[in-house]
Amino acid sequence: MTLTAPAQGEGVPLPGWTELLRRSPLEELLPTASRGDIISFALGLPAPQLFPVRDCAAAAARVLRAQGQASLQYGPPPPSLKRHVVRLMGSRGVECGEGQVFLTAGAQQGLSLLARLLLGPRGQVLTEELVYTGLQQAVAPYRPRTLTVPTDPETGMDVGAAEALLAGGARPAFLYAVTDGHNPLGVSMSLEKRRRLAGLARRHRVPVVEDDAYGFLHYDEEMLPPLRAFEAEWVFYVGTFSKILVPGFRAGWLVAPPSLAPALGSLKESSDINTATFAQHTVAAYLDAGRLPAHLRALRREYRARRDAMLRALAEHFPRGAAWRSPRSGFFIWVELPGEVNLDEVLRDAIETERVAFVPGRSFSADARPRAARSMRLNFSNCTPERIAEGIARLGRVLRRH
Amino acid sequence: MTLTAPAQGEGVPLPGWTELLRRSPLEELLPTASRGDIISFALGLPAPQLFPVRDCAAAAARVLRAQGQASLQYGPPPPSLKRHVVRLMGSRGVECGEGQVFLTAGAQQGLSLLARLLLGPRGQVLTEELVYTGLQQAVAPYRPRTLTVPTDPETGMDVGAAEALLAGGARPAFLYAVTDGHNPLGVSMSLEKRRRLAGLARRHRVPVVEDDAYGFLHYDEEMLPPLRAFEAEWVFYVGTFSKILVPGFRAGWLVAPPSLAPALGSLKESSDINTATFAQHTVAAYLDAGRLPAHLRALRREYRARRDAMLRALAEHFPRGAAWRSPRSGFFIWVELPGEVNLDEVLRDAIETERVAFVPGRSFSADARPRAARSMRLNFSNCTPERIAEGIARLGRVLRRH
Repeated sequence: MTLTAPAQGEGVPLPGWTELLRRSPLEELLPTASRGDIISFALGLPAPQLFPVRDCAAAAARVLRAQGQASLQYGPPPPSLKRHVVRLMGSRGVECGEGQVFLTAGAQQGLSLLARLLLGPRGQVLTEELVYTGLQQAVAPYRPRTLTVPTDPETGMDVGAAEALLAGGARPAFLYAVTDGHNPLGVSMSLEKRRRLAGLARRHRVPVVEDDAYGFLHYDEEMLPPLRAFEAEWVFYVGTFSKILVPGFRAGWLVAPPSLAPALGSLKESSDINTATFAQHTVAAYLDAGRLPAHLRALRREYRARRDAMLRALAEHFPRGAAWRSPRSGFFIWVELPGEVNLDEVLRDAIETERVAFVPGRSFSADARPRAARSMRLNFSNCTPERIAEGIARLGRVLRRH
Repeated sequence: MTLTAPAQGEGVPLPGWTELLRRSPLEELLPTASRGDIISFALGLPAPQLFPVRDCAAAAARVLRAQGQASLQYGPPPPSLKRHVVRLMGSRGVECGEGQVFLTAGAQQGLSLLARLLLGPRGQVLTEELVYTGLQQAVAPYRPRTLTVPTDPETGMDVGAAEALLAGGARPAFLYAVTDGHNPLGVSMSLEKRRRLAGLARRHRVPVVEDDAYGFLHYDEEMLPPLRAFEAEWVFYVGTFSKILVPGFRAGWLVAPPSLAPALGSLKESSDINTATFAQHTVAAYLDAGRLPAHLRALRREYRARRDAMLRALAEHFPRGAAWRSPRSGFFIWVELPGEVNLDEVLRDAIETERVAFVPGRSFSADARPRAARSMRLNFSNCTPERIAEGIARLGRVLRRH
């Protein structure tokens, strides 16, 4: 079906699905929330003060000195980068080989390629009721039917509900899971549920796309392995250097059965020929220098301090009856407010009068649940503990007015 | 329709269209043709010896020194890059503003985003009979009906045939055109045809996707303006720094009506969040230094010398009756051989016995025409004049055996 969408294209006829295109909250908030005078809990940005800029500069200079021409030419990814990814996956408890590693321009490209590969027009996807907006965008062109299951704030996805759907005959093209540091809920899935979900994928032959953007940023000593550690054939793992190194290189990876590699390779080539060779060489050179483990420890320490600062401030300043949990991984705290409240108005008020921003929960709602409408996602990675304390105090003031 | 494609996914059910996925000749030939002992006329690689590695290194170092954190963070493209693109477009005779410039990860991403935006499932596209494989890949997921028109080797696309199709009721989602340095044919469109095609787009309200990867690399004094100079609303221009600077930064752009920007922005975000910030900052810093015009002059001089070396060698070594033209822009010479010849066998023989490679013409055939089956695409940008003379002599020997 072709519709004319004059608001978009001065009469250029666009396919009907483009009406579904909406700018994500991230995109809409970027200009406002990036203003220096705003304390922003809105986006999922890593802290730029923690970027290893000097080590990145040294890596880039080394690459250009030693292999300037090759690193700037079209070409396959440097093999050493795949070796590093295999080692990183090993540190998460995942055994895989280089043949299972497929390099991407960040996690979002991984999701986008898998959606394109797995999802036919008007197919089904199975997600949680609250889901990362980037996944919604990645599947939108295929206009899928979205099946949803609830999420327990303590233990993660309701795997029993997923099982019931599959047992009832649902045949989604894939099930989408964020096992650790869920975006937006902050929850990490229990070990028992990981095992059960992996078994479910195998038994029902349903691919699980596991988005592990935050799994390396865990704040407890104990770290659970991702789903991919329990199931190699039906779990497609999506990883990225954006949160653990820098986003600006757009370097990510998939771990998927080698049999998918040719199709992924063709899709990737048709999307952008190949991933930025220079950035990949630079990431590989950074990893060669062996500083990532120490850098990861520093990130965990600092992000844990920021999380704790936010938890303390929430307890002090947020209204009675508001509920949240302490996330064990990732960048986000999900706060559910008591009673009726219009969070769009709260957000406008918060930005205008108190210069503080967040994302209203409905933005993440796959099926417009009322609970999401009175919740907010708060990011704690991109402000210092002091700014977090100040910003939550401001937000508390705004909430008391609504 | 969902089909099981066991060769690709160990039972992972993939949508039917993925059967159409094929590795492009570029992808298939990359491992062989990149071997140091092969003289390759196969790929469309720019000459790495001409990369301004030192200037790129200086730009990268400057960016990391002056704005290390910002250039490695998520973020919008640097505004100065859009200003540079506006100026570059001006040098091609195109008037546009920054609001019409949309930055991409190279030309292929521009094509891929436009295909996704314009093409509904089972829509139509209008291309020439011989067409860039990357365009074929970009449209494959939508399983379009492809309408084709012939190309005149002297004046380019048969615009009259396109007009007849449109007058006859064809309503393609877009028409694809490579106005200068056609890939694979090497031809540049005559001025009269440019005017006519732009008028056709306007009159029939059919978008034209103009792929101008090679337009800045023209070897005559006279340079014709691209279609976009004649029609601002219905021509969507695709540009790239890959051929005029380096491919490794994956930096390209679209010039399109500002009304398309929101939809393109959402699509881009769903594909890979945003273009590699660091690479974009580095390209902007390179351009700030003001060396591109001199670099472009040097590229044109050297590529012209390589083109001329290939033309001389073809005249000396290729069989009587073989036909080719001197391209005024770009990287390719298209050679049509006399009589029946199996070019797959010629290619195998050429690689095995003479260590020389090319791409058989049928790879570019949108509709499997017999003329393409006895043609070959020869790239002259990636070998020195000496290697070109030697390689064409070898290829001439192989052809005499077939």
